[in-house]
Amino acid sequence: MTLAAATPDLIRALSETLPEGRVTPVPDAYLTEPRGRYTGTSQALVRPVNTAEVAEVVRYAARHRIGIVPYGGGTGLVAGQVGLGAPTLLVSLERMDKVRLVDPDDNVMIAEAGVILKDAQDAAQAADRLFPLSLASEGSARIGGLLATNAGGVQVLRYGNARELCLGIEAVLPDGSVFDGLKRLRKDNTGYDLRNLLIGSEGTLGIITAASLRLFPRPVETATALVATEDPDAALRLLALMRARLGETLSAFELMHRQGLDFLAETMPETRQPFAEPPEWSVLIEAGAGQGAMVAARLQDALAEALEDALIQDALIAQTGQQAASFWDIRERIPEANRLIGAIASHDISVPVSLVPEFIRRGDAALHAMDPSLRINCFGHLGDGNLHYNLFPPKGGDRAAFDNSRKALTECVHDLAHALGGSVSAEHGIGRLKTADLVRYGDPAKLAAMRAIKAALDPLGIMNPGAVLDA
Amino acid sequence: MTLAAATPDLIRALSETLPEGRVTPVPDAYLTEPRGRYTGTSQALVRPVNTAEVAEVVRYAARHRIGIVPYGGGTGLVAGQVGLGAPTLLVSLERMDKVRLVDPDDNVMIAEAGVILKDAQDAAQAADRLFPLSLASEGSARIGGLLATNAGGVQVLRYGNARELCLGIEAVLPDGSVFDGLKRLRKDNTGYDLRNLLIGSEGTLGIITAASLRLFPRPVETATALVATEDPDAALRLLALMRARLGETLSAFELMHRQGLDFLAETMPETRQPFAEPPEWSVLIEAGAGQGAMVAARLQDALAEALEDALIQDALIAQTGQQAASFWDIRERIPEANRLIGAIASHDISVPVSLVPEFIRRGDAALHAMDPSLRINCFGHLGDGNLHYNLFPPKGGDRAAFDNSRKALTECVHDLAHALGGSVSAEHGIGRLKTADLVRYGDPAKLAAMRAIKAALDPLGIMNPGAVLDA
Repeated sequence: MTLAAATPDLIRALSETLPEGRVTPVPDAYLTEPRGRYTGTSQALVRPVNTAEVAEVVRYAARHRIGIVPYGGGTGLVAGQVGLGAPTLLVSLERMDKVRLVDPDDNVMIAEAGVILKDAQDAAQAADRLFPLSLASEGSARIGGLLATNAGGVQVLRYGNARELCLGIEAVLPDGSVFDGLKRLRKDNTGYDLRNLLIGSEGTLGIITAASLRLFPRPVETATALVATEDPDAALRLLALMRARLGETLSAFELMHRQGLDFLAETMPETRQPFAEPPEWSVLIEAGAGQGAMVAARLQDALAEALEDALIQDALIAQTGQQAASFWDIRERIPEANRLIGAIASHDISVPVSLVPEFIRRGDAALHAMDPSLRINCFGHLGDGNLHYNLFPPKGGDRAAFDNSRKALTECVHDLAHALGGSVSAEHGIGRLKTADLVRYGDPAKLAAMRAIKAALDPLGIMNPGAVLDA
Repeated sequence: MTLAAATPDLIRALSETLPEGRVTPVPDAYLTEPRGRYTGTSQALVRPVNTAEVAEVVRYAARHRIGIVPYGGGTGLVAGQVGLGAPTLLVSLERMDKVRLVDPDDNVMIAEAGVILKDAQDAAQAADRLFPLSLASEGSARIGGLLATNAGGVQVLRYGNARELCLGIEAVLPDGSVFDGLKRLRKDNTGYDLRNLLIGSEGTLGIITAASLRLFPRPVETATALVATEDPDAALRLLALMRARLGETLSAFELMHRQGLDFLAETMPETRQPFAEPPEWSVLIEAGAGQGAMVAARLQDALAEALEDALIQDALIAQTGQQAASFWDIRERIPEANRLIGAIASHDISVPVSLVPEFIRRGDAALHAMDPSLRINCFGHLGDGNLHYNLFPPKGGDRAAFDNSRKALTECVHDLAHALGGSVSAEHGIGRLKTADLVRYGDPAKLAAMRAIKAALDPLGIMNPGAVLDA
């Protein structure tokens, strides 16, 4: 089914059906994505202020068979937010930025799709609660996009992905109907799980307009440490030890290769390096719990045990909140350092946790066999088996020199993750970047079911055309 | 689309395509359900031993347009496992009862659909891990059925429903294709969430044949208490206090009305009653954590605080594992006592946690206004806002006398739950008992999407016909 282009006439007519100012030309910033690989072709920016207006836009698009690209904070890394091909409507949820409710008794918040993650975190904190979703782009990423892509981040180990933090959603479906699923229930077994189907569907089955989100008690005691370890095998044994000693209070376990620290030194020399000599591998560990759970003492004891067992060579335990923040700063700045260095290719893979060391060993060997000059920055959420495994040119080298080998390098990484029972997109999604990977590595029965579902819910194919399932 | 009946000829032919002994007549026990309200009309029992055989059966059914009713442990309470109308094939997964893998490093177990929950728990325990799904029927309920119905139980507060405990599934789809989604990953954002769509779809979109399940560290320290409280308001404030003091170590918070204890005394007088005088309301509390988390001391302190604040009147803290088990025994025997008394109507509702007291107050008043002789046994998972709110005739009365008022009583309960933003099926599902409720209370856009998905994935309508979505 061919879509119509969003022509100036169609855009003008849409503009007239909506209140003043909803439809404008598209500023350039909306047409690019963080890694600068795609430039969108959307012809109009639509910024509805409420769910009824979103529904109005979708009905209009359905009537005229125009494609819609939903837009959150624009921080997606797989170009799910960038319309390509025939001109589309770029529908930004940014004006739907109200936190409708924070209820600390029920531990629930209702936030509109355009609420920035940081603002959601702050609203929870103001009610003495924690909204635990946390990731590097939290100052720009918005709730709708975070749910549409089932975002992960640094606290998945303990609290789960965006999906697990969502009790209900409100969404506009491709026919313009509004799914009012903003329930605040922990348990509701009435029919198919439409919420989870929309979460992670990257705007191809509807536009999420609001969500009820789970809140948690704020950890009263928090303990943070940065440790040096020899290799991923030792880090894995350290993870098992921390789990045994800290149980579910363990909220973050972030592995970082020295390459990341070197990139920081190279691109942001003002960043305070925690170790005198950057260790080959380091791990950022955080635990938190309620009053009396003694997490600081337990973490300290566990680290002493780890030192004794030679699982780690050095341990810095944050003595103040500021010191903890500086450890996190290291971790959170790595993606920006990567961006400044300029990756040849970035990968967001996951494998069963126990196979992470094997993945790194085999991956490093295979890639360096292809090109010994490659710099590999491997970091990520070891506790989730999720690594960001990014490839860079040698120092002073030009990534353009790798234009011909990029595809083979990525295939090497993805083939390996797949062979180990892993995923080629652990937390970033498919977007437009990985549609071919989905076909290559996806389960055929699942793909067929996905196509059937897409055709059933969006028979015109107007919702985020070209994303996830290529036309 | 009309289904064909499973005629003797069709059954014989199916029997010949499968190895000896797979197809037999249906013993009566398979045609009833725990509450004895429905009697199935299935004409053949099919017991495949592996996924390929399940796929073979589904392809055969698709070819001949025969309905299939998937059957797990037969413990469902909404008749999802009972085929009605034209004769169907009853496909029991009981012979697929292997635990394929227990991996304590990755905290994952792969279990076939026919594994009994208790066996799955035991397999986890043998590897020093916890599989936390726990409910009264765990000695009979099987993994496939538990996932197909997204079962809840007594540890949802901490660990979530069946859905949250499942990392991946293998399933036979309605066209006989096999979805091989047995990944062992915490993070995998490659396409639509087919796993969660099948979980909770009650066999209407496919047959789950195996699952990879999340394991957890076994709590080393556990503390269990049974407390007496005046009313649900006090219980709710107690919940908030326990959450503040025990954080996520709090794993169960089960509210019980005195009626349940009275039923126990009436039907199972051998059960040791914990309190000399059954309190109007009691709460079973459990917390667990790793070594050094001091849960026993923290629970004791929190209960002392609760006594001081008059949130509770009495507290029994289990001093031994045996005593803890005897507290749980009380809670777990209530459903059986209910069965022996014979309910007029049973309800499995949820409301936002903060509204539980209001639900009980208004529900009791409305029902007693309709019939002051009713006995109401209200018990359930207060921490999840999920109550089993069951109605019984007066002592010595006959439930048949309520045949004419049953519908109105249930409507009263369900209308109230719905009005409070709740669900009319919190954990049992829709099955065949609540299809009308789904239409009455369900979101219209969601219902339309469900019908579209059902038609897309099961165009012949062979999978569990009549369940969830009425024909």
